[in-house]
Formats: sequence, structure tokens, C-alpha cells
Amino acid sequence: MAKEVTKRADNYSQWYDNLVVKADLAERSAVRGCMVIKPYGYAIWEKMHEVLDKMFKETGHVNAYFPLFIPKSFLSREAEHVEGFAKECAVVTHHRLMANPDGPGVVVDPSAKLEEELVVRPTSETIIWNTYKNWITSWRDLPILCNQWANVVRWEMRTRLFLRTAEFLWQEGHTAHATQQEAIDEATKMVNVYADFARRYMAMPVVVGHKSPNERFAGALDTLTIEAMMQDGKALQAGTSHFLGQNFAKAFDVQFTNREGKQEYVWATSWGVSTRLMGALIMAHGDDNGLVLPPALAPIQVVIVPIVGKDEEGNRAIFEKMGELKKELEAHGHSVKIDDRDTLRPGFKFAEWELKGVPVRLAVGARDLANGTVEIARRDTLEKISAPVEGLGKRIEELLDEIQENIYAKALKFRDDHIVKVDTWEEFKEKIEEGGFLLCHWDGTPETEERIKEETKATIRCIPIDSAVCEEEGTCVYSGKPSHRRVLFARSY
Amino acid sequence: MAKEVTKRADNYSQWYDNLVVKADLAERSAVRGCMVIKPYGYAIWEKMHEVLDKMFKETGHVNAYFPLFIPKSFLSREAEHVEGFAKECAVVTHHRLMANPDGPGVVVDPSAKLEEELVVRPTSETIIWNTYKNWITSWRDLPILCNQWANVVRWEMRTRLFLRTAEFLWQEGHTAHATQQEAIDEATKMVNVYADFARRYMAMPVVVGHKSPNERFAGALDTLTIEAMMQDGKALQAGTSHFLGQNFAKAFDVQFTNREGKQEYVWATSWGVSTRLMGALIMAHGDDNGLVLPPALAPIQVVIVPIVGKDEEGNRAIFEKMGELKKELEAHGHSVKIDDRDTLRPGFKFAEWELKGVPVRLAVGARDLANGTVEIARRDTLEKISAPVEGLGKRIEELLDEIQENIYAKALKFRDDHIVKVDTWEEFKEKIEEGGFLLCHWDGTPETEERIKEETKATIRCIPIDSAVCEEEGTCVYSGKPSHRRVLFARSY
Repeated sequence: MAKEVTKRADNYSQWYDNLVVKADLAERSAVRGCMVIKPYGYAIWEKMHEVLDKMFKETGHVNAYFPLFIPKSFLSREAEHVEGFAKECAVVTHHRLMANPDGPGVVVDPSAKLEEELVVRPTSETIIWNTYKNWITSWRDLPILCNQWANVVRWEMRTRLFLRTAEFLWQEGHTAHATQQEAIDEATKMVNVYADFARRYMAMPVVVGHKSPNERFAGALDTLTIEAMMQDGKALQAGTSHFLGQNFAKAFDVQFTNREGKQEYVWATSWGVSTRLMGALIMAHGDDNGLVLPPALAPIQVVIVPIVGKDEEGNRAIFEKMGELKKELEAHGHSVKIDDRDTLRPGFKFAEWELKGVPVRLAVGARDLANGTVEIARRDTLEKISAPVEGLGKRIEELLDEIQENIYAKALKFRDDHIVKVDTWEEFKEKIEEGGFLLCHWDGTPETEERIKEETKATIRCIPIDSAVCEEEGTCVYSGKPSHRRVLFARSY
Repeated sequence: MAKEVTKRADNYSQWYDNLVVKADLAERSAVRGCMVIKPYGYAIWEKMHEVLDKMFKETGHVNAYFPLFIPKSFLSREAEHVEGFAKECAVVTHHRLMANPDGPGVVVDPSAKLEEELVVRPTSETIIWNTYKNWITSWRDLPILCNQWANVVRWEMRTRLFLRTAEFLWQEGHTAHATQQEAIDEATKMVNVYADFARRYMAMPVVVGHKSPNERFAGALDTLTIEAMMQDGKALQAGTSHFLGQNFAKAFDVQFTNREGKQEYVWATSWGVSTRLMGALIMAHGDDNGLVLPPALAPIQVVIVPIVGKDEEGNRAIFEKMGELKKELEAHGHSVKIDDRDTLRPGFKFAEWELKGVPVRLAVGARDLANGTVEIARRDTLEKISAPVEGLGKRIEELLDEIQENIYAKALKFRDDHIVKVDTWEEFKEKIEEGGFLLCHWDGTPETEERIKEETKATIRCIPIDSAVCEEEGTCVYSGKPSHRRVLFARSY
């Protein structure tokens, strides 16, 4: 087959880069660091968007849209925020091109310089809090629970499709609250929405926890994260939810009159997931044959491939049967595609749909027709069975559920097999080379965190919220100082 | 009431600007020419998006995503295209900010200048055709039927919310075909999808036609348009579909091997509608009390307002009944909101929901409860009736259909009353002052078109495709030269 993918064991990183392109998910564009999301990849993102949007609305949020551009001075208003984003901004300085006076083409028109430069949003806290200032007067105006689906730009020097691109698509929730507790609850609620989405739809187990101060979002008092394990044992931060305290309210002077008639600064959260989730989905489940998509997010859940012969009447009967099957499966709510391309052989088609991760493949040939059966191949286990056409709708429904569960169970087992408690520095250095998450004690200082990173490239992925696993007395794996709980270390994307 | 809107008759333009802000649809942002689309406005746009997306998919299109940035040199590849867009481009020249060495804040880092400037996409033909080059080799790769939902930027000097903003949201379809005829058919199909959407969902009649060469999209061989009439008689171009010939294929060297094994350039179309449709929707139907939303696009179709008194038990019964009604209406597929705010009086709420254009308002008080009735108020006619609670679901369903039809019928009558055939220049000058569309003969020259524009501010909105109305012999209303068909002149947004 032409589209063979590097094997994971040979080069996991190359396997990923290969797969993204060969499965028609995305490709690099002519613009440095920016990707083209191809129709098949975009269809998966659309599914994610649809499910998440519903979950946000069910938790009381509404969508809105704020400007792409942020005046340069806005970024500086919050000291840590500008520190975090200034170094990787796309900056608009002019608003017109003109014919090149010295040759062909166009050049920037020097007379069209902007009074103040505009930054293409790397995230929207500043422009949104500048807007909220006019929306909020009294406690009656709170909470504000807005979400935005948008593109953002961060001028990363090293980019990889989906995982780290200069432009990416995401959603960013920005909420405003009357009390600290309400904002903290909101940030917690949303990280749990993300965890729930990862588990139920992406079939991807995650560890929920707090970031260490070093790894917090620029401007946050607390950052909650979901961390997923990829098949090379590295961690991928798949979504974050920030408690911003009153930092942005103070930076943009957003105050409200509380129930007691006093002026107070507003409390804030922000939270987001991005097209990075596509990278997580690919790396969490893919195998050497290609993608393995969980049915809940697969644009095509069932593909039907005809096994035609030379008997034209027989072929017609096969196509007729496939049409009936498609209708029946669609009536059960599944998305079905008939691969009727007449220039390709079945074997080629099988490999292509495996590469694209379609959960279930049906093959229908003359013999099946005679026997009243179809061949069912499931993508997750690569098993094939022959099954009666009778009652196929219900059978496929059960099978899709089973596949969804199996993919999750497999990922969960893999993760749990690769989380180890580590208590000595020697063991830490040894285990981190094997990949996986290390649960160990840390003395709570940024200095120790930094040294561990320098020596092993491992960072604190999170301080898990699951206290049963983590809360115990011990001593720091690096410094030997006392510690009250274990944290999660790993190398990461 | 605090939120009173200017009357249309007093100042139509101010009425519009007022209404957009007071109905919480959108507002100006801190960034010149960019708008904030507020949750209520965005909810309407989401409905439009949802319906259009379904229509595109039903006609065989898929979504994809292409970069926000376009290398400056790409724009120059197609001569007319660059001519059309170079003067209003946001240009990214740097990729980093740094601490201001001379004071507070940040400045552009001069060492982070891009080798080639990037333009924020004003439209995506160039970056997409540069991508298609790698997707197309043979006739088997065609057609490509991609659509993109995205933001675009055109640095307009005079902006108005929704109608003309520096940044706006839109969709842009970009298709690639093996033959000229197929591309022409696609462009025609899509302008008809837009017309159908305008009529059936926006309740807005439109005239479908070709643009005169002067008014074509920069780089197109033919531009099809839907033109709607606003209540001041001016035209609003609500969507366009372009036959691009082989212009972009030639500019980006996109060739394919045809069935005969020969190399040919690919044929192209592009088509788009934008948040400008929001402006059209507001202006087509709104009245002096506010928005009038067609039920098919109303985020809230039915609002229920309680008329509470001092009897707490009675109030509880009212809320209970409202809950039942909401459930019943939702079971019929309607979106329903109970306005349970306890700090506002019913009269205030009535005015607010009228301002926001909610198609049906129900009021439930103690007397209604005793009589087994509710008060139904319809937004389009402002009529109120008392109706039995029994069978309300079905009644509201019929009423929403009736309102949708009535809004369309009203807009259609208004438009037809304001389209006049004009045969002399004197009459033209007189009628154009009254507002409306003028159907008249034109000699087909850009010079005449230009002079008419200079003298009257009227432009050719389109050459209608409805030949029954337009095809007849006559003489140009301006030059007296012979003409074979009437065209549509109007002043426009």
C-alpha cells in the first residue's frame, strides 16, 4: 500500500507526523507554522465542537464573539500576562499595501502605519475584560458566562501539526463572578466538563489536577488541567481552566456594586481547549495501521465496501443490499458511508479506512448475499466476523458501544500500567527514561522543580485533585525535604 | 422605558444603529472598526450558521480550515485580485514584542521583523488555490467542494455594526472543477441556496442576478448576487457567488490531467455570506418597537412572562403552570424562555422582549389560571388574544408558521410596491429620491453606469436572472442607446 505509516516502535514521533498527513487530517501550509485542516480532520474537530458546545450550554454558558485584534497597550495592563505572551505575538503595524514603486508586486504602504500596533489575539482575556467593564455595574449583571469559538495565534518557533501551531482553533470561556468562591467553583466545574468530555467522547482517561505555580497560565492564581498519557508515556496537557482572581478586573478596572451597596472588583475565570485535542486523540489510540477513532467522534462510524465480481446482475444486488443496510444503520443514528469507487480494489479500500480509523467496516460480496450475512471488521481489535444481515442495526449499535468502551479501557489500562510511585532520585531518573507518569513527593519549591526539569526534562504535570492517591506524608524525591502529598511528574508534549 | 429606539421615519439610519446596540446584538469595540457580537446577536448568527451549514452539506460540500495569514506575494499573483484588496489589508510585519527600553509597556521588537509580510486574510482564494495545487493531479481529484467558516479582515474606513466592519465572520466556499460548465453550474447552484435561505429562513425576498462587470468580485469572470430591499428602499447585497474561470488556477499553476490524458487548468468558484446578513435581517423586518425576528431564526421563539400578585400561593401556581407550558412547547420543538426576573414589572419585560423581537409572548396571571387561558401576543402584528391553555402546543406551532409567512409576505409586498419600471432620465432622478429599485434599460457600458452613479448615487445592483421581468427591447435610460434588457438600479448599503 502506498500510504504506509512509520511503525510506532521504530519512531513514535515520526509515526505521528506521518499519520496526520497520510490520514488526510492536516498538512503544513505555505505560511510558517500555520496548518491547513483538511476536510476529514475538520469533520472530527466539528464533532468535538458540537459535543463541547452542547456541554457548555447545558452548564449555563452562551457564545459571543470578540475582536481578533488586541491593542498592544492592553497586553501590558496585566504584568504577568504580557510577560507570558509578548514574545510570540503576530503584530499588525500597517493597514494598506501599495504597488511596488521599484518593481513588480506590492509593498507595505509606509503612510498607512497604525497609531497603535495591534496584536493578533494569543488569548482574549484583555480585550474581553475591557469589554466586560461596560457590561458590569451591579451584582445583578453577574455572573457573565461567555464562551467564544475562535482562532488564536502564538508565534511558536517549533511547530507540529495540531500539537503546536502558530495559528490554532479553540474555544475560550471567560466568566465574571461576584464572589471568589463562585469563580473557583466555575473553574473546577469546567475542568471537570473537560475531563468528562475526554473520557466519554475521546475515550481518553485524564488526570485532573492543579498546575504548580511555575506552570500556571500567565495571570492566573490557579490553573487546573487535564493531563492525558500518550502511547510513548509522555503527558499531553489537553485542557486548562484558570481561576484568575481579580487580576484582570483590576487591570481593566471592572468593579460592581455588591448586594450591600459596596464597590468590589469582579472575580474571573477562563478555560479553553483547542485543536491540540486532535493531536491527543491521534496519539492516544492510533496504531501501526493508522488512526483508531472512538465511535463517538468518528465522522464515519461504519463504512461499507462492496466485493464485486464480474456478474453485473450480482453486483447490482450487492449495491441494492448495501443501500438497504445504510438506511437501516442510519435509522439507528449512525453515520454510514458506502465506498463505491470503482477504480480501487477492496484490499486497498480496507487499508485506507483502517488508516482513517473508521470504527466498523462491513464488506458485502456475492457469497454474503447468498448466505444472508455480511463481514464485520472492527477497527480497534482488527477482528473480523461473519454476521447475519437480520438484526444488523441493533448489532452494530451494540458493537459501536463496545468499541467505544474497549478503546477507553485499553487506554486506561495503558495509563494505569505506566503510573508508578517513585521514592528515590535514582529510581526517578531510571523510570523517567522508560516513559510514563511518576507520582512522587516534591518539596513545593520552584527551585527543585526547575532542577528536576534540567536534569531529566520532566515537569510537574499536575498536583492531582484525587487526594486518595496523593495525600500522604513523605520526603521530596530530589531534596529530601518533607512533603505532604505526591505530585505527578512526566515528560510532556 | 429606558431603551427607547429612534423612530424609523425620523432617522432610519439612526434607528438601525440604535437598535443593534439596544437589542444587545453587537457593539463597537476598543479596536477601530471591529465589533463585539453579544450573546443575543451571536445566537442568531449561530442559527444562520447551523441552517446554512446543513444546506451546504446537503449539496455535497465539506468544511475545512485554511490559514488566517496570506503571504503578501500571494495576493499579487492575480492582478485584479490584488487591485481589489491591497488597499484595505491588515499587515503583520513582526512576530514579537519586547519591554519598552524607554519607559513602561511594550514595543515592537525590531529584530523580529518577518522576512515576508503577512496579510490577514480579506478572503482566501489565494491561500486556498496555493493549497489546492497539491491536492489536484487528475480529473479523479475533482471536484473539490470545500467551505470554510472563518473571520476575515478588510480595513474599511467607514464602518457600521454588521453592515461594514473591519473584521467580520463569514463562510467562504471554494470549489474546483474539471469543466467550465460544472463551475458555472456550481456558482448558480450556490446563489440559489442563498436565495432559498434568505426567503425560507430570513423571510426576506431577494432579487437574484448577475453583477455588472464594474461590480464584480476582484478576479471573477461573473458574480452572482442576491439583493434585498431594506425598509428605506435601499438595496443590501446579502450574498455573492463567483465564477472565477481559470484565473486562480493559472495564478497558482493548478493543472490536472483530464480524461483524455491532457493537462488543463482547473475551473473555480467561490461564494460567501457574512455577518452582514444580521444587518439585513434587522433592517428588513424591524419596526419602531425593535427587532422582528422570523421564528425560523429566533433564538427564543416564545417568552413566557408571569403576571404575579401578592398572593404567594397563587404565584406558585402561576410558575407551576408556566413550567408545564414550557415543557409542552419544547416538546413541539420550540425554544422557550420563562422570564422569572423578580425585580422587573411585566410592562418593562413586555417592552424588552418586543425590542428583542421574540415572535410570541405569553403572559400568565391569576385570572388566566382561573379561566384556563393565557394571553398570546404576537410580535409581528402586536396583536393580543386570550387563548385556552388546552391544545396550546399545536396552536403556537401554527402561529409561529403563520408569523414566519406573514413577515415574508409583508417584506415581499413592500419590495414589490417599491420596484418600478422607469423609462426616462427625469423619472429616474425623481424615483431614486423616493427610494426603491428601478428597473430600467442600460446601454451596457461602464461609462454610463459610472455617470449614473455620480449623478444619483445609484448603482446597478444586478442584471436579474428572471428573464420574464427583464428581457425586452428598449433604450438606455441615460444615453438613449439600444438595450436588450432591463437591469436593477438602486442606492445601496
